[in-house]
Amino acid sequence: MNRQKKFILQESEIPTQWYNIMAEMPNKPLPPIHPATRQPLTWQDLAHIFPEECAKQELNQTDAWIPIPEEVLDKYRYYRSTPLVRAYALEEALGTPAHIYFKNESTNPLGSHKVNSALPQCYYAKQEGTTNVTTETGAGQWGAALSYAASVYGLDAAVYQVKISMQQKPYRSSIMRTFGATIEGSPSMSTRAGKDIITRDPMHSGSLGTAISEAIELATTTPNCKYTLGSVLNHVALHQTIIGLEAEKQMALAGEYPDVVIACFGGGSNFGGLAFPFMRHNIKDGRKTEFIAAEPESCPKLTRGRFEYDFGDEAGYTPLLPMFTLGHDFKPANIHAGGLRYHGAGVIVSQLLKDGLMHGVDIPQLETFEAGILFARTEGIIPAPESSHAIAAAIREAKKCKETGQERVILFNLSGHGLIDMTAYDQFINGDLHNYQVTDEDIARNHIGV
Amino acid sequence: MNRQKKFILQESEIPTQWYNIMAEMPNKPLPPIHPATRQPLTWQDLAHIFPEECAKQELNQTDAWIPIPEEVLDKYRYYRSTPLVRAYALEEALGTPAHIYFKNESTNPLGSHKVNSALPQCYYAKQEGTTNVTTETGAGQWGAALSYAASVYGLDAAVYQVKISMQQKPYRSSIMRTFGATIEGSPSMSTRAGKDIITRDPMHSGSLGTAISEAIELATTTPNCKYTLGSVLNHVALHQTIIGLEAEKQMALAGEYPDVVIACFGGGSNFGGLAFPFMRHNIKDGRKTEFIAAEPESCPKLTRGRFEYDFGDEAGYTPLLPMFTLGHDFKPANIHAGGLRYHGAGVIVSQLLKDGLMHGVDIPQLETFEAGILFARTEGIIPAPESSHAIAAAIREAKKCKETGQERVILFNLSGHGLIDMTAYDQFINGDLHNYQVTDEDIARNHIGV
Repeated sequence: MNRQKKFILQESEIPTQWYNIMAEMPNKPLPPIHPATRQPLTWQDLAHIFPEECAKQELNQTDAWIPIPEEVLDKYRYYRSTPLVRAYALEEALGTPAHIYFKNESTNPLGSHKVNSALPQCYYAKQEGTTNVTTETGAGQWGAALSYAASVYGLDAAVYQVKISMQQKPYRSSIMRTFGATIEGSPSMSTRAGKDIITRDPMHSGSLGTAISEAIELATTTPNCKYTLGSVLNHVALHQTIIGLEAEKQMALAGEYPDVVIACFGGGSNFGGLAFPFMRHNIKDGRKTEFIAAEPESCPKLTRGRFEYDFGDEAGYTPLLPMFTLGHDFKPANIHAGGLRYHGAGVIVSQLLKDGLMHGVDIPQLETFEAGILFARTEGIIPAPESSHAIAAAIREAKKCKETGQERVILFNLSGHGLIDMTAYDQFINGDLHNYQVTDEDIARNHIGV
Repeated sequence: MNRQKKFILQESEIPTQWYNIMAEMPNKPLPPIHPATRQPLTWQDLAHIFPEECAKQELNQTDAWIPIPEEVLDKYRYYRSTPLVRAYALEEALGTPAHIYFKNESTNPLGSHKVNSALPQCYYAKQEGTTNVTTETGAGQWGAALSYAASVYGLDAAVYQVKISMQQKPYRSSIMRTFGATIEGSPSMSTRAGKDIITRDPMHSGSLGTAISEAIELATTTPNCKYTLGSVLNHVALHQTIIGLEAEKQMALAGEYPDVVIACFGGGSNFGGLAFPFMRHNIKDGRKTEFIAAEPESCPKLTRGRFEYDFGDEAGYTPLLPMFTLGHDFKPANIHAGGLRYHGAGVIVSQLLKDGLMHGVDIPQLETFEAGILFARTEGIIPAPESSHAIAAAIREAKKCKETGQERVILFNLSGHGLIDMTAYDQFINGDLHNYQVTDEDIARNHIGV
């Protein structure tokens, strides 16, 4: 009965470098390109909108280890390491011989992994003399984390929140306001991009694509203002590798090494954050760990998207990125996992998927809520609907082990808690949620690239 | 810059016994008495409604250390120890020479300290063959924790939630439903006590007093059902001493010992949980730590109540308890710190207050929200409105240190986070919250005892 469940690191053991998988990938990602000139972008191009250090990290394909600034580590130490937990109660409920571990990022400030990148992005912006940061947010996890990080480093933050999410999850706007951020529902009348969208469609309920367009416009038209992004980009996944680097040490404390590593998938930052540090041992040391990215059935870019150059936003303000995409005007169904409603996969993950170093699974919404409730009742944490995709995929693997009798070691990322998403749980319990399948025609209808 | 902020214990260091301060108090608490016979109650009397082991613990004035059952420790280990954090950012914002530490109970399942007692209460109930548990909840922190604990040990849970809290914090009801509990707004028409209250006052918005009456009635009229309580009683504070016992070890890791220990005060369990283990060194070892219980200005039982035998509930179903009370029909204003809206103080705390081993401070609602927002912006955690009372009291102490130049060590309990309380923060930011003073006439109007 006296079994250790929670593995924690002392502050002195918290990693002091991030891991940059680009330096060690068998095939490097293709470069982002300028849609007009078709030329690869330089970090100087990117530095027009991003903090300079982030722009450099975005294109750094040579340094495998990037030092975490001491001022960021100082803030990480408030909440890191997050616990690695052996999910005995979930295992018992499933009757599986598998050993299930999860990395609990829900204990972070604001309840998700997002703060791991919000802090360095704001720190770099501050270092470079920026006074304002802006961003977009869907369900609001990223906007909340950014608002906190901006307040930590004394920056003003302006957040464009997808209008429909603002209505569905009002508490997240309140959280951002508590940290002193300015919130605007997107599409808004405060930008040209927003006005154009509203003029065309006065009832437009917004999307990550519209909000990104507005935030980029604000950043490029406001003095001393930089744009920040919560996922998709390489430097965001880089910052998130603190998750996997900690987990690697913690798995060693548990005396195990994962056979399967699982995370949910929106743009790829929480997946990459957990997976990349372990994947380096597949690349360099001949390990055979399986990597699974769990995406919504209603937004299946990894399992059914095309690998092409496409825009990151709806209006086409971003560079063209080489990625698995459903088309930049793909409109995902209104599932509750707002953070996974994005048309494309990050550049690194797209290359890794192409090279067979990982694979995707797509999960129906109802299966994710069943998994989330089982997890809550066994492990005591109500997961974010996004994270429930990872839980559902882990449960699938654990059930396979039950059939085969294999004692595999499964590690997944609990990217955040769902305490702000209780409306979704209510709807599920009341039988008001549905699955959303995407037809081949839906996918064919969308536009990729220019 | 490389300053340690977070002090954590390895699983092997987590305390395996609770501390029972009753065994070492200079003056033992007076016994609970039966309102009709005026005789002291025995544990057998209490065991009619409480699990037997809890009934025994309630009256145990001899054993200073009570072993934590291995099956409870097994669950504690999922989330304990909770972090002890040095609040450097808050200190800097205040410009105080004080060293401020907080014990972060918001990282527990369901986001508050309540689970520390919900688990043993449900475990004992299960051990004794009970199939159902019932309880009351105000803001919903206790109800959520109990619903989780009931689900862990396979019990059915029925929760009476204060009606006004149910409306103010609908997410907490959803959380309880997610764990499979049945929820009823109190006063309800499902009990005689509830019907009587509604008959007298159809618009009654409920109080902990009304909800306790209803839950006790359900427990006494339902086969195989036991009543559980989230605060006030001695055995609840006993279970919560895991907080202070951990904190004592963690303060030693930090190389400090608190000069001031602060917690918010509703019934006394989070206060006692943090304070009692430290207070034993005042009692036994001549330490001079100051103990401060922070209560709402609108419910000032410690600072302005009377020490008398009074009922624990509005309808008068409970035994008479010797406590500081505002009268069992005192109606606290509708402040957002629902967990502190209770007319009486626990028996142990009442005796300690009488004996001068601790003191109370009362804090206006607006001051608590100012403190909560400063804490959020500096430490990254949005506190529960209840916990903000402790923060406000800690800030007062830290400001005194700024004036006097004293480098006092202040330790407070962050009993829970406020992510389910964002409506309250919104109202505060919009200027819609108020202070509520209680006049002497308000207090004189209420009934104490029979």
